[in-house]
Amino acid sequence: MSDAATPGEFELIRRYFMQDVEHACSSDHVSPSQARAGIVLGQGDDCALLSPSPGRRLAVSVDTSLADVHFPRDASAEAIGHRALAVNLSDLAAMGARPRWFVLALTLPDVDEQWLEGFARGLYGLAREHDIALVGGDITRGQELSITITVHGEVDDDSAITRHGARPGDLLAVTGTLGSAHGGLRAWFNGQRDERHPLVAAYLRPAPRIKEAMSIQQRVSAGLDISDGLLADLGHLCARSGVGACLDATALPLDQALVASLGEHEALEAALNGGDDYELLLALDPEQEDAVRQALETLGGALHVIGRVTSEPGISGVASTGRGWQHFHAADHGTGASP
Amino acid sequence: MSDAATPGEFELIRRYFMQDVEHACSSDHVSPSQARAGIVLGQGDDCALLSPSPGRRLAVSVDTSLADVHFPRDASAEAIGHRALAVNLSDLAAMGARPRWFVLALTLPDVDEQWLEGFARGLYGLAREHDIALVGGDITRGQELSITITVHGEVDDDSAITRHGARPGDLLAVTGTLGSAHGGLRAWFNGQRDERHPLVAAYLRPAPRIKEAMSIQQRVSAGLDISDGLLADLGHLCARSGVGACLDATALPLDQALVASLGEHEALEAALNGGDDYELLLALDPEQEDAVRQALETLGGALHVIGRVTSEPGISGVASTGRGWQHFHAADHGTGASP
Repeated sequence: MSDAATPGEFELIRRYFMQDVEHACSSDHVSPSQARAGIVLGQGDDCALLSPSPGRRLAVSVDTSLADVHFPRDASAEAIGHRALAVNLSDLAAMGARPRWFVLALTLPDVDEQWLEGFARGLYGLAREHDIALVGGDITRGQELSITITVHGEVDDDSAITRHGARPGDLLAVTGTLGSAHGGLRAWFNGQRDERHPLVAAYLRPAPRIKEAMSIQQRVSAGLDISDGLLADLGHLCARSGVGACLDATALPLDQALVASLGEHEALEAALNGGDDYELLLALDPEQEDAVRQALETLGGALHVIGRVTSEPGISGVASTGRGWQHFHAADHGTGASP
Repeated sequence: MSDAATPGEFELIRRYFMQDVEHACSSDHVSPSQARAGIVLGQGDDCALLSPSPGRRLAVSVDTSLADVHFPRDASAEAIGHRALAVNLSDLAAMGARPRWFVLALTLPDVDEQWLEGFARGLYGLAREHDIALVGGDITRGQELSITITVHGEVDDDSAITRHGARPGDLLAVTGTLGSAHGGLRAWFNGQRDERHPLVAAYLRPAPRIKEAMSIQQRVSAGLDISDGLLADLGHLCARSGVGACLDATALPLDQALVASLGEHEALEAALNGGDDYELLLALDPEQEDAVRQALETLGGALHVIGRVTSEPGISGVASTGRGWQHFHAADHGTGASP
């Protein structure tokens, strides 16, 4: 019972999860590229030793992805590796933080090296895209496939995007289409197994808005990433900022593939409540709108204004009922108690 | 499927895992005690924002504790909470790092608030003892009880204890008795359910050697914590340092309760291979022996010299065979590839 590691844990880590490490290539066990990444000591000791940038804040977040809860067990290993890191990187994006390091705890029901190779490819592919280094890990054998990642980023203290700075009169805006991930999950359950299908890809391979957030962090009042669904996450933002919101649901950006798949009414419902899109929800002073839009468009992104921050608590707006547009007043979804 | 949190995840976190947080007591959502702990922004946003100490290294480690793999599912919730954090703190002790912050990912098969209350009590009890703050968490519902903790400590760059500094001629020493945790696990399987039983307590409530390590970090050549077993962990140290070792197994410190429980031969076997004791294994220049012993004894601890570092690879020594003492030559247990 005390020897809980899968047989060959050390070897599995060496083979699949030390891709950025050049073994024993220097006397202090750190390669030049590791030194540039702020890694004083990488994997192979009891802790990683890291060198935070002077004067910056460390942003830390943890998320677990569990098979058949957060992703379909039969998705490709590469997609599972991508998605597990993406949802964590999205928390760094939500703060406008620059990704630095992550650690990985992997619980495997069995050791399938082909699966591990694909998982590592998806994980490292996204890690390299966002310049974040894997610095530690733990592999355990258990009944359920479970992936817990802790990400570390850095941000200037006065420019971190938080949930508590939204002010009445601010615009509410999102950085991309909503509901597509929910549509993709439904398509997957209906048998669509082509991971390049645009809706399925939106669910399995979300793109964390890291670069976008870093480019606008000093121009927005508040923000977070949309993981639970627009209404739920807007509720978190409002609760934390002590404000309310008025949404124009007619302005929600919907992917045409989603509307074609679900119809307009259900597509809008997916956009309001679906979750898993990992776009950013931002509150910003109207005077910042043009500059923020330009910064996002420079990166190939977009800004869609979808409403306003109000001083009255609660979320109201107009939404489709399937028979037309009606005003609605949503309950406050957020307690502000959790990341 | 996208809404994977247990019902009431936010409320569970608020109720059990925000004990150090004074809610909304200041405009920036941080209490005076949090500010002292280097917490710029605690739980309640997408990331915690932390303030690392200037010029120090960040030590980071992650470990998963899985029910019936790393701890008995029917142990008290308080012991499970204590142990899950202790094994992570022990990785900070292995580097001589000062504990600062940790994040917790908890997968629960069901929501048992009485269990959560006990778990939090065990976790926070040890956290307060070692001055480490819980700054983020994630609660998921799954089939298996699983606890993944990522710990963060700080250490001066030139005084971190690593695995790669052992030199031929160094003494090998440990900070306490070995084998007791293994004896406790066997006692548990044999029906001993008194968690105050000395061997059971050694298994369920290990004491991470944080203060001891901080007091001697500049006087030792190398070190790690003994989690896999003395021979296995000595193998890791030797592989990483490029040295061998000669053990005097007659010098291994054994708890009298262990010898009484298992007999001398099996007690020694438990000390060599049992694991889970979380004492430190140190390599130190003989000239440092007196100073290191004095520093440890000042803290109520001890130093037991158990052998020497050699230039020849491999681990040799004398050990009991049950019929007397024989020389042995252990295989190299370590690859140096993993924390």
